[in-house]
Amino acid sequence: MAQKPLDVLNKALNSPVIVRLKGGREFRGILQGYDIHMNLVLNDAEELKEDGVRKLGTIIVRGDNVVYISP
Amino acid sequence: MAQKPLDVLNKALNSPVIVRLKGGREFRGILQGYDIHMNLVLNDAEELKEDGVRKLGTIIVRGDNVVYISP
Amino acid sequence: MAQKPLDVLNKALNSPVIVRLKGGREFRGILQGYDIHMNLVLNDAEELKEDGVRKLGTIIVRGDNVVYISP
Amino acid sequence: MAQKPLDVLNKALNSPVIVRLKGGREFRGILQGYDIHMNLVLNDAEELKEDGVRKLGTIIVRGDNVVYISP
Amino acid sequence: MAQKPLDVLNKALNSPVIVRLKGGREFRGILQGYDIHMNLVLNDAEELKEDGVRKLGTIIVRGDNVVYISP
Amino acid sequence: MAQKPLDVLNKALNSPVIVRLKGGREFRGILQGYDIHMNLVLNDAEELKEDGVRKLGTIIVRGDNVVYISP
Amino acid sequence: MAQKPLDVLNKALNSPVIVRLKGGREFRGILQGYDIHMNLVLNDAEELKEDGVRKLGTIIVRGDNVVYISP
Repeated sequence: MAQKPLDVLNKALNSPVIVRLKGGREFRGILQGYDIHMNLVLNDAEELKEDGVRKLGTIIVRGDNVVYISP
Repeated sequence: MAQKPLDVLNKALNSPVIVRLKGGREFRGILQGYDIHMNLVLNDAEELKEDGVRKLGTIIVRGDNVVYISP
Repeated sequence: MAQKPLDVLNKALNSPVIVRLKGGREFRGILQGYDIHMNLVLNDAEELKEDGVRKLGTIIVRGDNVVYISP
Repeated sequence: MAQKPLDVLNKALNSPVIVRLKGGREFRGILQGYDIHMNLVLNDAEELKEDGVRKLGTIIVRGDNVVYISP
Repeated sequence: MAQKPLDVLNKALNSPVIVRLKGGREFRGILQGYDIHMNLVLNDAEELKEDGVRKLGTIIVRGDNVVYISP
Repeated sequence: MAQKPLDVLNKALNSPVIVRLKGGREFRGILQGYDIHMNLVLNDAEELKEDGVRKLGTIIVRGDNVVYISP
Repeated sequence: MAQKPLDVLNKALNSPVIVRLKGGREFRGILQGYDIHMNLVLNDAEELKEDGVRKLGTIIVRGDNVVYISP
């Protein structure tokens, strides 16, 4: 059964996601919200870096940076 | 007989596809969904890397990263 | 007599085309379909590389990658 | 409970935020305003640089530069 | 007397033009058609390269690659 | 009290502003006008360069180059 | 008195302008026309290069290349 991309995002609300951005940055956090541009709200967000993790709290990611989101 | 790009995507639903992104990344997975921006949902997604395969589960790919999709 | 770009694409349906993408990649295949964004469907597609040809079967090319199409 | 990205921005009005831009620049300031493009107004803005802080007063950031905003 | 850019393109129909693209490529050919995105149709198109000329026949150039067109 | 980005630009009319562009260029001048794309008109504009200042007179800056504007 | 960017372009019609493009190219010519995308028509256009001037005749510049226009 087919599911639209935004439907899959909707099901992932309040769950942990990994977000890969252009340029190679990777974040994880709890998906708190999104909109049709794939702007995202992540709670308890962390940037995953080669040398560890950087805690960021809540972040609003502008959708045009996103490569993929993994629920 | 001509077929529009989104019609061809529609026929590929629930089948394996290869997705090539800008910058050279390549993914394969089962096409679970798409929308008019070519945002994609892939199940059982894997990133194909020079040194092997990285399993990603379900991913939502933002369409503006796509170079081509091969059903 | 003037011809709009999409009219020329339309006449090229079911015929071989060469597609040059940003970044220098070059594909050839049978033009199976297109839309107003210049998203393309190529059948029997091949990527032309310096060291040979890579067969890709059917591909859907996202239009924003296109530099030119040669029918 | 889900919250849209712009709702989260709205709650952050008159509070300090960190803004990460494409290319790696990072700013902090008091969020004075925003619009649907994520254009931002920051008061008491500072650019955070490796070798210290550059005070900028009020700045209007064009939204297409934004990677993320952290309230 | 002022002339809109697309009016000037219209007058150049069926005449030779030089087209400079982002990244430095340069083409010449007979302007066969265009649309409001500055997508172009060139007949008898040639790419002008440092080491000579590459004959391309008819090409459809996607407008977002264009830097300038010289009738 | 919140203020929209374009309202802040409007208040800055006829006053000196600093404009930082993508790629690092920096201009200052008197803000003579703007529109919703953040296209700007600067009078008595100067480009600030490492080795001094280049006087430009009036310039119309295309908004998509802007990183931030500081009134 | 405020002036919109396109009003300033309109006043510059039939007068010499300097046009700076992304990537550093610089052109001068007589502004013959423009449209709302800042597509421009320049007559007697010249590209200003480090080692001299390249005469181009009439050119239609696609607006998305423009950094600034100086009347």
